[in-house]
Amino acid sequence: MEQRSTISGLPPVVQTLVERLTAFPGIGRKSALRMALYVMRSDSEFARSLADALLAVKDKISFCRTCWTLSQTDPCPICADTRRDHSLICVVEEPGDVIAIERTGSWRGVYHVIGGAISPLDGVGPEQLRLEPLLERVKQDGIKEVVVATNPTAEGETTALYIARMLGQTGVRVTRIARGVPMGSDLELVDDTTLQQSLEGRMEIK
Amino acid sequence: MEQRSTISGLPPVVQTLVERLTAFPGIGRKSALRMALYVMRSDSEFARSLADALLAVKDKISFCRTCWTLSQTDPCPICADTRRDHSLICVVEEPGDVIAIERTGSWRGVYHVIGGAISPLDGVGPEQLRLEPLLERVKQDGIKEVVVATNPTAEGETTALYIARMLGQTGVRVTRIARGVPMGSDLELVDDTTLQQSLEGRMEIK
Repeated sequence: MEQRSTISGLPPVVQTLVERLTAFPGIGRKSALRMALYVMRSDSEFARSLADALLAVKDKISFCRTCWTLSQTDPCPICADTRRDHSLICVVEEPGDVIAIERTGSWRGVYHVIGGAISPLDGVGPEQLRLEPLLERVKQDGIKEVVVATNPTAEGETTALYIARMLGQTGVRVTRIARGVPMGSDLELVDDTTLQQSLEGRMEIK
Repeated sequence: MEQRSTISGLPPVVQTLVERLTAFPGIGRKSALRMALYVMRSDSEFARSLADALLAVKDKISFCRTCWTLSQTDPCPICADTRRDHSLICVVEEPGDVIAIERTGSWRGVYHVIGGAISPLDGVGPEQLRLEPLLERVKQDGIKEVVVATNPTAEGETTALYIARMLGQTGVRVTRIARGVPMGSDLELVDDTTLQQSLEGRMEIK
């Protein structure tokens, strides 16, 4: 009876691995099981190198104390890059957003990661976010424009508004990324708010 | 310029982790990136426990030398279970198939994992599979029935036929799992071969 929990054919160590893997967002039990089976099938070198990579990330990565993105160096490569325009700050919620915007290759300024969005329901107020350091940066560094690129969600919009008000005293230009219909979408299927915003934000065709 | 590869906002150690994760089947670059970002965000304990779980799987898991499934013990819990009918052997391709069948809770016999299917194109012949040990088991252990549960693919069918012929000399009963329309499917969308097999394999309604 001691073997009851393994009777399903899943050894305890594999069960443990499956449980750890399901902690990842988007990884359900089935995907985790497939991944665990892959680990069982593959050579020890794969498990070893993946374990090393996991530990290296936690060991080597910390916050850039200028823009608060996660980086292997402090300042991060973006803040250290003299070719970028340091008078333009793009404010985002999470380090993942920096990666997404960098991928577009269309932003030549720097960033400020506030670490989330104002969400009273989740107990996140302005004081939990890195807004004070943003205000300090704007006051000290001769910033020309702050582009607020928080998510187009209720929380993100609230946060954008809060930031605009907070920075109002400094006289800096505060802008918001455009909201509208995404490329490749079908107007029939786009939600009402987005469609309304795409009309309100309409621009001249040049 | 040394920092060029990190200019996309992805530190090298994170890049390495993303690459390792994409080795998993079904994990693309986007999923791997999301997983890596989760590791960055979560506490060190998560990365540590996941790394430990990975290494434990490679350290503790090996083949059951009776049925050749992957197990933490030898014999595996299934082969060691005296309540199961050891005269019924279900032949499967991979250890994952054992887990899938065990999940149904409808098999009270034991297993034999041959480690793949005959596939000349991939250079897998009968001699690469654990067929000889299967023949030995059937000859020695008073086996009553061998249910061949290889995948319903060209390779799986070829392998099932090979096994049936190989075991012909022993006089054991060799059966094949039923092929037919899967539950919840739509006849209009089911492929021709499956539909044909569901007709050929029709049964009395009792």
